[in-house]
Amino acid sequence: MIDYIYVNSGREIIGDEAGLDIEKEFDNYAEKIRDIIANLNSNKDKPGHWLQWMNLGYNEETVWYVKEFTAMVEGRFDNLLILGIGGSALGARAISEALLPPYWNLLDKEKRNSFPRIFFLDNIDPDQIQGLLNLLDLKKTLVNVITKSGSTAETMSQFMLIKDKLEAELGDDYRKNIIATTDREMGVLKQLADQEGYKTFYIPDDISGRFSVFSAVGLLPLALVGIDIDEIIQGIKDMDLALKNTDIRHNIAAQNALIHYLMFKEKNISMSVMMPYSNRLKYFPDWYVQLWAESLGKEYDKNGNKVNVGQTPIKAVGATDQHSLLQLLAEGPNNKIVNFIKVKDFDNEVEIPKIFEYTSIGYLGGKTFNRLMESEENSTRISLNDYKRPNVTFILPKIDAYHLGQLFYMFEVQTAIAGELYNIDTFSQTGVEQSKNYTYALMDRVGYEDSAEELKTKLQKCFNN
Amino acid sequence: MIDYIYVNSGREIIGDEAGLDIEKEFDNYAEKIRDIIANLNSNKDKPGHWLQWMNLGYNEETVWYVKEFTAMVEGRFDNLLILGIGGSALGARAISEALLPPYWNLLDKEKRNSFPRIFFLDNIDPDQIQGLLNLLDLKKTLVNVITKSGSTAETMSQFMLIKDKLEAELGDDYRKNIIATTDREMGVLKQLADQEGYKTFYIPDDISGRFSVFSAVGLLPLALVGIDIDEIIQGIKDMDLALKNTDIRHNIAAQNALIHYLMFKEKNISMSVMMPYSNRLKYFPDWYVQLWAESLGKEYDKNGNKVNVGQTPIKAVGATDQHSLLQLLAEGPNNKIVNFIKVKDFDNEVEIPKIFEYTSIGYLGGKTFNRLMESEENSTRISLNDYKRPNVTFILPKIDAYHLGQLFYMFEVQTAIAGELYNIDTFSQTGVEQSKNYTYALMDRVGYEDSAEELKTKLQKCFNN
Repeated sequence: MIDYIYVNSGREIIGDEAGLDIEKEFDNYAEKIRDIIANLNSNKDKPGHWLQWMNLGYNEETVWYVKEFTAMVEGRFDNLLILGIGGSALGARAISEALLPPYWNLLDKEKRNSFPRIFFLDNIDPDQIQGLLNLLDLKKTLVNVITKSGSTAETMSQFMLIKDKLEAELGDDYRKNIIATTDREMGVLKQLADQEGYKTFYIPDDISGRFSVFSAVGLLPLALVGIDIDEIIQGIKDMDLALKNTDIRHNIAAQNALIHYLMFKEKNISMSVMMPYSNRLKYFPDWYVQLWAESLGKEYDKNGNKVNVGQTPIKAVGATDQHSLLQLLAEGPNNKIVNFIKVKDFDNEVEIPKIFEYTSIGYLGGKTFNRLMESEENSTRISLNDYKRPNVTFILPKIDAYHLGQLFYMFEVQTAIAGELYNIDTFSQTGVEQSKNYTYALMDRVGYEDSAEELKTKLQKCFNN
Repeated sequence: MIDYIYVNSGREIIGDEAGLDIEKEFDNYAEKIRDIIANLNSNKDKPGHWLQWMNLGYNEETVWYVKEFTAMVEGRFDNLLILGIGGSALGARAISEALLPPYWNLLDKEKRNSFPRIFFLDNIDPDQIQGLLNLLDLKKTLVNVITKSGSTAETMSQFMLIKDKLEAELGDDYRKNIIATTDREMGVLKQLADQEGYKTFYIPDDISGRFSVFSAVGLLPLALVGIDIDEIIQGIKDMDLALKNTDIRHNIAAQNALIHYLMFKEKNISMSVMMPYSNRLKYFPDWYVQLWAESLGKEYDKNGNKVNVGQTPIKAVGATDQHSLLQLLAEGPNNKIVNFIKVKDFDNEVEIPKIFEYTSIGYLGGKTFNRLMESEENSTRISLNDYKRPNVTFILPKIDAYHLGQLFYMFEVQTAIAGELYNIDTFSQTGVEQSKNYTYALMDRVGYEDSAEELKTKLQKCFNN
């Protein structure tokens, strides 16, 4: 299981001003946390509670269908192209980057065991899109278009382009190269999938994008590149069991949620830095950023009070970002908490050769990169402690499907608990609606004409110094 | 030239509480800014002022040597491997990603015009290193090891490994595959380069890593993959000329520095979000993060007062991160300023085909991705204005070597000006020294034994809940 160290956010290590009296706070919040966890687990099956993601570890049907389809197409495609943005891409990208051999897309087919290369088209930059079209042989490309609503402008415009090109190359057979992942009943993608006859996977109701990684949204792409999704599921289940414990002293999701919440409320900690010491986990912070930012960045609480809460999540990767962020973390304002992710055992042990012995770098020779990585991580941790900067550490026994299932699920639960502590709606995203409507207006969508006029004036003003 | 729009950080657009009275502030700070700019330009040649980077646009000798060497090795290598971390990697990575065709490393040799693929090994993760060794044919790999001091543990340990492997494969000829970029006189890399006979490029004195992109540190890798460094240099020169203007009303670096400074001091804006609307610029924020964080995150001001200043730079890319950060930017605490980078003309114009006309996504058909990108950017900007969130915009006419030279240099000057406004030492990084010493101790480097004992105790404590 994943281990959790919180002592470096406590007074014993970083002092009274910066640190929390953690044990006392655990007592203070014991009852509140007990209620929150009990409520999450009793509400998760009720419609409208948006907690269906808590059931994804037990969705045997989806797992079965994903594996069946994966077996069917095995070896048939050179490329897997994911059309999706935000929660429809970030989870699978982070997990595939962590579990596939490094530089996967550069390996030849044999080294990939005939599994496809994987591409995430998560932007609408015309230069990038043209570059991708130049690169990919679409005939050999399986396209997975992912959008719950079916109306995401970025994803659907990409899909229109790719569908058109595919059909031009393959005629009617083009549909064999397309899989849609969307809502079971609603939306235009579902409608098109039925009409055109695409293979379709469904996202269960009441799951928002950022909590969808363990639905077909994430599991299908991962299975298609050969990742063992049964192991992921086992990791979720074991973590879910552990996190059902309503005693904060035995629930690491509750512990980190509470520490982050109190740091925000009482210690002016406005940022949460996610810093895995592993290059394979380099996209994990991207997934965390969306989860934490979109879930907890809210204007109103559940009672309608204007609160404008939310910690800003910050991406980092160790040891690299010691040469970028550490100076600020140490000496800047004391307004960040660092989440270290420590990997206990890397898959490889690589030795630094014993050369240049009589120079000032001779001390490195004969040691391993593993030890250097661990030393740098410990140095950073202790240095932050010296500077009285709060930090916590998650210890991952190793990077595999099982422990990543645990890790991602743990942070989902942590986020849900934090949302309850803030007393906000964790699962909404009202702050992006206005911007979506503006885009519709600027793209001449019927029904948005009024807003287009108003926009023209605003646009003029905001480009005039 | 790059254009700059600041009005969306002013009271007229975002109101009195969140916005600045910008024109008045320009008046208030006119004299101070005049002095700062005059001082930068008069001090830049004086030793110890760490402003030598302001001369890099005029370093014809380096440009000449870089081009000569590039011509000499043209077509000889399939791969260029950069061993460097932080400032030794971030600039060249950001610029090469922006200027090379997308998916460069996946293109075959012909499409790369025989220029090499480019790899940045900027971490010490044993799994990543092993993956790279599995991938690369070292015989066909040109290795550029970059460290000013010559003692950077991450870079030199990588170098020891690669040198050992190269020598095993190539014997004495291995040295032809190595270029060292380091100090002209000091450090173990310089010593080794002389001893072993490596081709060497020098980093001028008094330039810190994060301001080194336009020395051989950045120019050599960029030239080696076929980027027109003369155009970059021209961009720097033209921007340098523009930024010599001591009148804040005609100096965009001073304008943005002042706005960021005042936002930090007076409006509680503790974060600076860098958000290019271009996928090709996706690593530009990484470079900016190091520049801004390490330069301005400081414990003491020049008079020795404890100030703990520094805005936290945040990486983002549009339109992607609308689906990740926008909710928090709009509804969270009003503690961030967003820097939009707008690209006026993309290289490609890509049309969304006119299909699915009678569905709810029909409005997209017949429009271009270019228009969609611009619409989303404008929607985000106006939406942030509605929420009274400060933002500024840099308009890049197009993404090419000339304008990237301008862009990077402009942010360097902005950072130097901001440092003067904060009255701190922009070019030091005292906050990372302690951590480096800890690493030496944990790696059993001779001379660090005392600190090792102390560390053992600290280490034990910081893993015990």
